[in-house]
Amino acid sequence: MTDLSATTDVTDRPSGAAESGVQDRIRDYLDRTAPETPCLVVDLAAVRRNYQALRSALPDARICYAVKANPAPEVVATLAALGSSFDVASPGEIDLCLAQGASPESISYGNTIKKPRDIARAHRLGVRLFVTDSEADLLNIAESAPGSQVFCRVLVDNKGSRTPFGRKFGCTPQTAVRLLRRAAELGLDPYGVSFHIGSQQLDPSAWEHGIRAAREVFDGLAEHGVTPRMVNLGGGLPASYTESAPPLGDYAEHIERALDRHFGARRPELLIEPGRQVVGDAGVLRTEVVLVTASAGDDRRWVYLDVGRYNGLAETEGEAITYRLRTSRDGDECGPVVLAGPTCDGDDVLYQHTRYDLPLTLRGGDRVDLLSAGAYTASYSSVCFNGIAPLPTHCIDGDELA
Amino acid sequence: MTDLSATTDVTDRPSGAAESGVQDRIRDYLDRTAPETPCLVVDLAAVRRNYQALRSALPDARICYAVKANPAPEVVATLAALGSSFDVASPGEIDLCLAQGASPESISYGNTIKKPRDIARAHRLGVRLFVTDSEADLLNIAESAPGSQVFCRVLVDNKGSRTPFGRKFGCTPQTAVRLLRRAAELGLDPYGVSFHIGSQQLDPSAWEHGIRAAREVFDGLAEHGVTPRMVNLGGGLPASYTESAPPLGDYAEHIERALDRHFGARRPELLIEPGRQVVGDAGVLRTEVVLVTASAGDDRRWVYLDVGRYNGLAETEGEAITYRLRTSRDGDECGPVVLAGPTCDGDDVLYQHTRYDLPLTLRGGDRVDLLSAGAYTASYSSVCFNGIAPLPTHCIDGDELA
Repeated sequence: MTDLSATTDVTDRPSGAAESGVQDRIRDYLDRTAPETPCLVVDLAAVRRNYQALRSALPDARICYAVKANPAPEVVATLAALGSSFDVASPGEIDLCLAQGASPESISYGNTIKKPRDIARAHRLGVRLFVTDSEADLLNIAESAPGSQVFCRVLVDNKGSRTPFGRKFGCTPQTAVRLLRRAAELGLDPYGVSFHIGSQQLDPSAWEHGIRAAREVFDGLAEHGVTPRMVNLGGGLPASYTESAPPLGDYAEHIERALDRHFGARRPELLIEPGRQVVGDAGVLRTEVVLVTASAGDDRRWVYLDVGRYNGLAETEGEAITYRLRTSRDGDECGPVVLAGPTCDGDDVLYQHTRYDLPLTLRGGDRVDLLSAGAYTASYSSVCFNGIAPLPTHCIDGDELA
Repeated sequence: MTDLSATTDVTDRPSGAAESGVQDRIRDYLDRTAPETPCLVVDLAAVRRNYQALRSALPDARICYAVKANPAPEVVATLAALGSSFDVASPGEIDLCLAQGASPESISYGNTIKKPRDIARAHRLGVRLFVTDSEADLLNIAESAPGSQVFCRVLVDNKGSRTPFGRKFGCTPQTAVRLLRRAAELGLDPYGVSFHIGSQQLDPSAWEHGIRAAREVFDGLAEHGVTPRMVNLGGGLPASYTESAPPLGDYAEHIERALDRHFGARRPELLIEPGRQVVGDAGVLRTEVVLVTASAGDDRRWVYLDVGRYNGLAETEGEAITYRLRTSRDGDECGPVVLAGPTCDGDDVLYQHTRYDLPLTLRGGDRVDLLSAGAYTASYSSVCFNGIAPLPTHCIDGDELA
């Protein structure tokens, strides 16, 4: 059992005082407006700041926001206004981006699994950049999006990630060489290589694996006279949960060093696909305690919240993501709890292995805020499981409030 | 690895020829109307037949359909018209039932986790039957739904269940005695005891544990002059997935025998809360193959469907529920596959440990039907994860079609 105090001071976190300010601003908004719970509040000023921080840390990389992390239209519009590009997973996300002011040229179709008619629809809408990792998909792209840029996803080690990807995506560097050569033969532009070192990656040196693999593919292609130009660094940059993550600068430094090592002066164009890093720390999820009960089994109280696995906290599966908490009773003496969601589902338990301590005075009706909950929450909500409505999102703009 | 052929003959399943007829009727509908995939089709005639089969098997039990299994309005209306009662998890499900013709007296508020204002709302709407398993909740019921009937959920062994409940719900028989005594003191009606032996329970003798625990509570209460009258047998009756389940009659027989053993001639009133048994075998989920690729790692092909963990197949988590499949290439030679969903999420893999064999000729655009998919699918769908729309449900009435 990891000893994590839910009342840990947040000021020692990566984004430090700035993030703390976001949390306070959102709390003020919540306290003032007292919306129905549960709800997610996202501060668009924080989204802008996180985007700019990455822009400064990796000035040469084209930022493709991973829309799936938080597809709130206001978030997409805010990023489009800053000139961000977008990593999308489906035609639904393409429509969303275009509706919020993104240009088709700013869109990267980043899902290796696509129907031919979805590729054709993307192409019709002006999208010209597609990922692939299999011959079947490549043939579909050549047929339905002729002449487009393609990049090939290679499978790399996900160690250090809180939510690794397994073997679903990516191919070997050898296969990538074969596929990108084939792409050229098919009249596509063999633009480059992508990889993903796993989401919420806590080890900044992990990118080394992917950059080395990309170099391997570049070399393999050079032997055949094919010249790719781009390396897509994928996602993986962290948000601030209970386990501390290194500061953004450390990630940038490791990435720059690996690029120097493997590409030297022949730097490729760079893409990066942040999701959590942009929107995670920009959100707070407010919940209400439904019930606090004594357990039959051990000395831990059970605290049931009005949010759970099926209306926003999908990433608590396997206790992979451990959110920091703030309660309306902070300061009172604390004791260990099991945290659970509101449905009649036995799997709707958030934390029973990870240690959380909450105030002994906590009772039904009290507030519990989950900090840094802006990514991968609302978009996972079920439509109506147990008759419970999906998690709503409120967007505020801290700069306008200030 | 369990050796399960995805093309297993379905006629040896519990509901045999009847269920097979349902699948054929739904296939005819799907082939004729060719709706956008993925989609779930539910045959209301099969829902009626499954309900009547349970009514015949356990004629003394009041059937409370577990709405969470499939909250399609047509399903609820069909069951309300047959005189079914309803097990609901939230105010949202109460509203749904009332709107579809259920009376407030037919509703059992079966979630131990409820806000006081939700209890009050249910009471205002006429609901008079509530579950509990903690003092905090009991006090809320006494305050917000005075005079109501309450039953206390005890925790029993979930062995044999494909999706056991863990320790989230239920208390010890000793605590149940204490709570029901307290209920009487608080002016509530200490109506009885409930238990849940785990969903998709493949062992019909499992109910024995719960019925014995209920008897223990009845005896404990009798010592204090309190006389409960009801035993709620909970859910757990199976649908027909790849692992065969015993026929419904076996379940009824075991339940009757356990009731005789523990209650003899002093039979309590009975409630039962079926979900899967009513609606599971009444549904077919039609999907389209997006892509078939060779794997880098082993000899299994990867088959990507347009449905996955986040748009309908939540119960493939941990490969707990293994659906039977039917493809548009059945009859062709088969080989092993990994089955995965359409999102950019590494956890969106349906089956990689359970062995599935599918036709070697299978390719993008082909149809794959998931049989007996009527329960716990559409209601779990995410609102828009990866920009993918929730799973739609089409209801047909096989009796009207015939």
